[in-house]
Amino acid sequence: MNSNAFTIGVDLGGTNLRVGAYTQALGLLETIQLRTRLADGPQAMASDMCKCIQRLAGQCQGKFSLGGIGVGSPGPLELPAGIFRQPPNLPGWDGFELRAAIEGGLGMPIILQNDANAAALAEYLLGSGKTMGINSLCMLTLGTGVGGGIILHGKIWDGMTGMAGEVGHLNIWAEAEGGMACGCGSLGCLEPHASATGVRRRAVELISLGGAAGLASLRAAKPAFDARDVAELARGGDADAEAIYEKVGRSLGIGLASLVNTLNLPLYVLGGGLAGAWDLFSPALFEELERRSYVYRLTGGKTQVVTAQLGPDAGLLGACLLPFAAEAKAPAESSRRD
Amino acid sequence: MNSNAFTIGVDLGGTNLRVGAYTQALGLLETIQLRTRLADGPQAMASDMCKCIQRLAGQCQGKFSLGGIGVGSPGPLELPAGIFRQPPNLPGWDGFELRAAIEGGLGMPIILQNDANAAALAEYLLGSGKTMGINSLCMLTLGTGVGGGIILHGKIWDGMTGMAGEVGHLNIWAEAEGGMACGCGSLGCLEPHASATGVRRRAVELISLGGAAGLASLRAAKPAFDARDVAELARGGDADAEAIYEKVGRSLGIGLASLVNTLNLPLYVLGGGLAGAWDLFSPALFEELERRSYVYRLTGGKTQVVTAQLGPDAGLLGACLLPFAAEAKAPAESSRRD
Repeated sequence: MNSNAFTIGVDLGGTNLRVGAYTQALGLLETIQLRTRLADGPQAMASDMCKCIQRLAGQCQGKFSLGGIGVGSPGPLELPAGIFRQPPNLPGWDGFELRAAIEGGLGMPIILQNDANAAALAEYLLGSGKTMGINSLCMLTLGTGVGGGIILHGKIWDGMTGMAGEVGHLNIWAEAEGGMACGCGSLGCLEPHASATGVRRRAVELISLGGAAGLASLRAAKPAFDARDVAELARGGDADAEAIYEKVGRSLGIGLASLVNTLNLPLYVLGGGLAGAWDLFSPALFEELERRSYVYRLTGGKTQVVTAQLGPDAGLLGACLLPFAAEAKAPAESSRRD
Repeated sequence: MNSNAFTIGVDLGGTNLRVGAYTQALGLLETIQLRTRLADGPQAMASDMCKCIQRLAGQCQGKFSLGGIGVGSPGPLELPAGIFRQPPNLPGWDGFELRAAIEGGLGMPIILQNDANAAALAEYLLGSGKTMGINSLCMLTLGTGVGGGIILHGKIWDGMTGMAGEVGHLNIWAEAEGGMACGCGSLGCLEPHASATGVRRRAVELISLGGAAGLASLRAAKPAFDARDVAELARGGDADAEAIYEKVGRSLGIGLASLVNTLNLPLYVLGGGLAGAWDLFSPALFEELERRSYVYRLTGGKTQVVTAQLGPDAGLLGACLLPFAAEAKAPAESSRRD
């Protein structure tokens, strides 16, 4: 890609559709945001997306040359075909051929990825991965659910069908230990224990069991309370709220132990809204990780767990970076920096 | 490597040291096996190893040209340095510089790997990976412990410090559910639930709880009974022995679900002695995998779980193959066959 190139990135979400133009020198030049028209079906969304892409492309062409278009989408998305497979947050879109719809609308190829993989790429190229000078990382996005993306030797590892990195569905707690049912059909996955949704769900559970006075008062004052409200309560010393975040930390520590023992990467990055409660959950996280992963213990300070440096723009930036990453050669093994 | 090349491979075990010469056309030409002199310390072992390598190299040179030397060793082994880090099966060898000792003794470089990674490479190049025509796999070796090796795009993924693939230490069962303590310091790892040692341990536990008449008779008749004896009992219809293998299957299914959701590989291979009880544990394995991994369900028949094709020679063959693999280019993504 020449130095005058710009790319267009799309962050498709269940609520908003964001499209941005980007250059390596200037970053995000301009962004467009609109509501995702869920009710009108996937073809309407694809049509909106193509219009935004064409508008931004028209504005930037002349000054810059178009180097590629990257799209980050919720999954499960079968790659490289680009077909939705029962996406839980896009009801009714199962089987929709996203790649074909966008490429047909634009008349040119796109680079399509799972949104969590795109966010991991951004964190790798522009965030903590860059700061720490490493070539491989695993990112966990703790939001409504728990998403994940794996970068190996500078490339997204998306597996056989684009579905790798679903670390929100690592097994953590089994039935008898209060493992909560997960939307994926399993029990005791990381997702219901380390997501914002999971924090609220556990708080409601504790209230219904009785005795959780602080949480009960919170709900009485603010029925739509969320994980941040529970975090504030915990910071104020409420023992039930503290216990909820301690379990978030234990769950993350157990999940990270499995990942560290399997992948032996230099960096694990926690992003998404719930990562803001790092002060509350990280002590339990490191206690479990230290106890449960001998690879963590043996590699000592070489295995890092940190919070993400990029905020809510990670997904959009990652989409903009997809064309650059597709072009880049994987760094030679000898250039690995740990 | 030219077509007339031979390689030498070493399979270092806690009991035996095996050295073989290999060509791609003829396979294993000759092997030497001797006892690993554990009590005499690692320097004595390294000296034995170098002598065997030199003897085989001398015999083959002239007829063939030496293309490289591969060594598979128990871990944890820090790579690329090649230093033992608290290896549980080589007591007292912590900190020994294996690479330096062998390369110093031979006066030439070697390719050093964890033994489970070498076995995975053999299964990839010569076993089920070849038969199924795939480029990536994860192998689990169910023996005294549970070892693992990951091949991604035709290359061993050994991580930042050579310790990747330790899938025997995936979290499966936590405390309250009978998660057994693991030698690694954690609780509820795959290893104590899906190894030959774990099967015997569970049998002894059931006998001590009383009521397991079949297992108690087995122990009375054969105090040193092993996992194969328990399997025979299960095949004869003993409910306690059957339950032990059912739990092996459940544990493997849960571990595989975590791996499938994280890595989305086309192939997972079970090797080692306990894989011979596939008929006993595989129904529970697939039941858990189907229930717990939506990536497995969505990829359908594309995600395969099979038993290894190579037997006890996998480790030695893998060591012989290390020089070939080090030379090979990773296949292009476009050539992936799923």
